[in-house]
Amino acid sequence: MTIDLADPPTGARSGPLFGVPGSRERIDTPALVLDLDAVELNLAAMAEIARAAGVALRPHAKTHKSTALAKRQIAAGAIGICCATLDEAEVMVAAGLPGVLITSPLVTAGKIARLMDLLDRTDDVMVVADDAGNVAALDAAAGARGKTLGVLVDLDLGQRRTGVAGVAEGIRLAREIASWKALRFRGVQAYAGHLQHVATRAEREALARAAQARVAALVAELRAEGLAPAIVTGVGTGTHAIDSEGPFTELQVGSYVVMDAEYGAVEHAPGASWPFRPALFVAVAVTSANAPGQVTTDGGTKAFALNGPLPTVVAGPLAGAAYAFAGDEHGRLVLPAGVAPPPLGTVIECTVPHCDPTVALHDAYHCVRGDRLVDVWPIDARGRRVPVPPG
Amino acid sequence: MTIDLADPPTGARSGPLFGVPGSRERIDTPALVLDLDAVELNLAAMAEIARAAGVALRPHAKTHKSTALAKRQIAAGAIGICCATLDEAEVMVAAGLPGVLITSPLVTAGKIARLMDLLDRTDDVMVVADDAGNVAALDAAAGARGKTLGVLVDLDLGQRRTGVAGVAEGIRLAREIASWKALRFRGVQAYAGHLQHVATRAEREALARAAQARVAALVAELRAEGLAPAIVTGVGTGTHAIDSEGPFTELQVGSYVVMDAEYGAVEHAPGASWPFRPALFVAVAVTSANAPGQVTTDGGTKAFALNGPLPTVVAGPLAGAAYAFAGDEHGRLVLPAGVAPPPLGTVIECTVPHCDPTVALHDAYHCVRGDRLVDVWPIDARGRRVPVPPG
Repeated sequence: MTIDLADPPTGARSGPLFGVPGSRERIDTPALVLDLDAVELNLAAMAEIARAAGVALRPHAKTHKSTALAKRQIAAGAIGICCATLDEAEVMVAAGLPGVLITSPLVTAGKIARLMDLLDRTDDVMVVADDAGNVAALDAAAGARGKTLGVLVDLDLGQRRTGVAGVAEGIRLAREIASWKALRFRGVQAYAGHLQHVATRAEREALARAAQARVAALVAELRAEGLAPAIVTGVGTGTHAIDSEGPFTELQVGSYVVMDAEYGAVEHAPGASWPFRPALFVAVAVTSANAPGQVTTDGGTKAFALNGPLPTVVAGPLAGAAYAFAGDEHGRLVLPAGVAPPPLGTVIECTVPHCDPTVALHDAYHCVRGDRLVDVWPIDARGRRVPVPPG
Repeated sequence: MTIDLADPPTGARSGPLFGVPGSRERIDTPALVLDLDAVELNLAAMAEIARAAGVALRPHAKTHKSTALAKRQIAAGAIGICCATLDEAEVMVAAGLPGVLITSPLVTAGKIARLMDLLDRTDDVMVVADDAGNVAALDAAAGARGKTLGVLVDLDLGQRRTGVAGVAEGIRLAREIASWKALRFRGVQAYAGHLQHVATRAEREALARAAQARVAALVAELRAEGLAPAIVTGVGTGTHAIDSEGPFTELQVGSYVVMDAEYGAVEHAPGASWPFRPALFVAVAVTSANAPGQVTTDGGTKAFALNGPLPTVVAGPLAGAAYAFAGDEHGRLVLPAGVAPPPLGTVIECTVPHCDPTVALHDAYHCVRGDRLVDVWPIDARGRRVPVPPG
């Protein structure tokens, strides 16, 4: 399968601003700004980490929800794309992305029917499961279409979110999957979402090693049963350096490609900064300056996710100034001592609290290189494709 | 101007589920559920409150971002629609909604150019301003198009968000507006967003009366200057009962049409509940049930806004159960003592923390009556229409 990376994801590169020096400061706000130089550095850095560790990359599209970014991840060597939702998977498959793994169980009749529609379009899609009844339903649906569906056992690593509770349950479910005619047992997913933001490396590493031992135990027992997993997937940006040495055959890292303030507050390694640069910002404009010591912007809680550190200003005279929300459509910047209010209309870029849900608030990436706006990419895997259930 | 209310907003009423008993429990999740019976009750209640008080209604579309709901507000007697953003206004005008008032200053060159494009389509659009330079820019732009733009002075009532700081500044800006050839001074906006959720009626009323005095002072001075404001607008759902007795000629209430948990926690009046019923819910499905005492759902921080009380389950065996977020795509419901986990795939409806930003996370309303799904309305004023600035 080949992907034409020259194919512009939107074609929205025409217009008087594109490529013009200073156009970055004229982006219509509030807007997501994506620094393509930083993205490319991050893509290359993670690819090299995976290569050196001898593990594969299947990056998570829940972070960026963009076929344009997913295509660049594939071009940088990734073997496929993870999706948190069926909606994301439908968009990725429609755009020709290979190796789509849906990392949440799909359990409703409506979603299983849509998954079968996806399977009609490509056999290159897999899903995780953590329940024997769900596995039976998946088999019945795939069998009725004359298809074979790849299924991974989802193992809980202590987050108590999805996944079978332990190794014994994992073996049992793997046997179930392997026993059904229309399913193919593909391996194990074990994602420790609760460990990714543990602040110190030492504590995060100790917890991640304990989680690895649990994964390794399941893998060993599966092998002993003749159910050797082809895929052992998991791992986020926070534990990538630890888990790339573990039992995983591939990493489903997401945030590394754009980074955010939440990861910025986490220690990568003693004395070492992250090998990834912040590539994502929220641009807001100053809209009012009548109250002393502050200005108002057009970015509120509909432009920034609330889970994560408060935004701060990235550059310029207000660099480091703290942001506060002043409602759903407004923000407030307290001016540092001695700093005059910038003129109305001034565009200011801010850090991103938590990248995934901030991206999900927006419809497009405004792609920049240096001070130039060079492209606009739709966040095309955002939102819902099929609001009406199939029946 | 007439609006064809028979015109289906989406036409998405076909499909096997529509109108079928029990179809409400088969809505594809996570999803916004809109109870049309409650909406109609809320529309009628606010219309009656305004009628009895002798004030007009220009409800705020920032809450619902839906031309379908805006049309129903007009049909219930509203004289127009407020919009927080230019994007919302563009969608409302394109759908034929009358009397659009943009309640935030538009200050960038790009937005002013788009506002002029809107003015080319209808002269029935107004904007607020709080800055003399902005007013001059609006005049220059409107004059260049040979148009007249209606402008209101935005008065700050202590929120320090937008608005001129005081009565003297308000008079000065009104004179500025009246002095420009291509502008028409239309009146005053004074919105006390910071008072809407003051928990007790007594405290909220005292603060709202003080704010009213400030508005009344500006109105009186404007009249004395020969600049009598045709419009005095402001007021949210929280102060509607107090402010409908004040100096306002119209109310720009938003939340009343759907309500939310945040307003549910506010005292309407001593011993009296709100005259509006909760009409909006988030439906999630149970996706995993392996951890004792809890189940996992498919609704996380991409389905619920975080500013407001945590969601709770609305009905059924889990009624009142507390919700916790378990990531961006997952939620966690702690089972009440003695309650067995519901089957995987069970759809559960939850309260909405804060309606406006929760709506902005979704793409459609799943409209129900009783236990039936009867329509799907797009949240068509959500998101950005023009990601690429005009230059």
